[in-house]
Amino acid sequence: MTLAALDSVRIILVNTSHPGNVGGAARAMKNMGLSELWLVAPENYPGAEANWRAAAALDLLESARVVETLQQALADCQYVVGASARERTIPWPVLDPRRCAREILDRARRGARVAVVFGREDRGLTNAELQQCQLHLHIPSHENYRSLNLAMAVQIVAYELRMLTLEEQLPATAQAEWDAPLATQENLERYYRHLETTLTEIGFLDPAAPRQLMARLRRLYSRIQPDEMELNILRGILTETSKSIRDEGKD
Amino acid sequence: MTLAALDSVRIILVNTSHPGNVGGAARAMKNMGLSELWLVAPENYPGAEANWRAAAALDLLESARVVETLQQALADCQYVVGASARERTIPWPVLDPRRCAREILDRARRGARVAVVFGREDRGLTNAELQQCQLHLHIPSHENYRSLNLAMAVQIVAYELRMLTLEEQLPATAQAEWDAPLATQENLERYYRHLETTLTEIGFLDPAAPRQLMARLRRLYSRIQPDEMELNILRGILTETSKSIRDEGKD
Repeated sequence: MTLAALDSVRIILVNTSHPGNVGGAARAMKNMGLSELWLVAPENYPGAEANWRAAAALDLLESARVVETLQQALADCQYVVGASARERTIPWPVLDPRRCAREILDRARRGARVAVVFGREDRGLTNAELQQCQLHLHIPSHENYRSLNLAMAVQIVAYELRMLTLEEQLPATAQAEWDAPLATQENLERYYRHLETTLTEIGFLDPAAPRQLMARLRRLYSRIQPDEMELNILRGILTETSKSIRDEGKD
Repeated sequence: MTLAALDSVRIILVNTSHPGNVGGAARAMKNMGLSELWLVAPENYPGAEANWRAAAALDLLESARVVETLQQALADCQYVVGASARERTIPWPVLDPRRCAREILDRARRGARVAVVFGREDRGLTNAELQQCQLHLHIPSHENYRSLNLAMAVQIVAYELRMLTLEEQLPATAQAEWDAPLATQENLERYYRHLETTLTEIGFLDPAAPRQLMARLRRLYSRIQPDEMELNILRGILTETSKSIRDEGKD
């Protein structure tokens, strides 16, 4: 259900001049699970550059609808978001891509057909086009260089939509998918005792003047959070170290 | 301070084969406020395609460091994140770009030099390269088409870093930047009374059988949340409507 909602999100590119951007946008969409692309009066399209940049998203180009006016592309839509560089004379409701994605998915999940409209590479959408949109989307680019590549802007919006659909499914911590259980406290303590013994055997730790050595080593290992398999490896190293010393002593 | 932390984040592209991707990555970086680009053994670089795709981020290409090995690019780094397609034999700590950005900025703000490493267009990073990283970054692409364009992947990571630096500064609601104060409840009620009068005057509302008309209109206007200037426009329309009717009656 949540993923299917993305099927009703239409990406519309208005009057593109570089076919490579159409291909790049198609690939970005397919990578993120979007599939419906409309092109309004594209220049130099179709073309080899579009196909090349689309890579394995050629099917999206093949099923893309090409129309003459934005009105045609929006006719059956119920909620329209327009990408804006935010230099408008009349303020309009505007959100960053993350918050836009929430508005878009909310509507799409309630069955609305939603469109996200992107403008020309050099000039974006006109004021008249932006005024056909309920919400404006602004990517908060850096003041040193405001203007994003068109396909990149599509990528960011498609990525935000996908992240939102996945929100509950993604692992919340870096260690969520692990192949062995984390070491228990009991086994960790056993390891520290083993380590202390071995360090004394090899003469690295002087029990009469231990300083903060064990505390430092505890701090180090607690940051690692070793799993049981890793702890076995570490204990194996200590066992072999002890053995080598004893063997050495025998010679 | 928060924005400056991005200065210590290094983007490293390993063994790229398409110079256009290097240019695209440079532009994506500058758009998002990143500036330090390193290239490990790039193929067909430098070249016209890289410059063209970089557009106004040519300065990033000019200051990019080109080295022969990943070891050279990582030598002075204190925290290394590697982009991964997540088909590794040994599980490694792995996070999506949003959570990675948090780890990266946490370190960068504490003064660490952080690197984010991206691999080859066709094969990504090798296992040996990935094992030089403390954390793996995985972009959760759709199962229909897993492989993102390299520059797009850089764009997503740079975007997440920028969004995080801006987090506290962004407007939380769509109406945050508006040019007139929202209408007060008092003025809204005055408007509704005016509207009711006018609708009666024009014969659209029958006070003897009002049905739910005013309730429906109240629900509609409360969804709009008009500002004072808009409310003045709406009241002006009512006033002119009444005037026209009276003028009509005089004829």
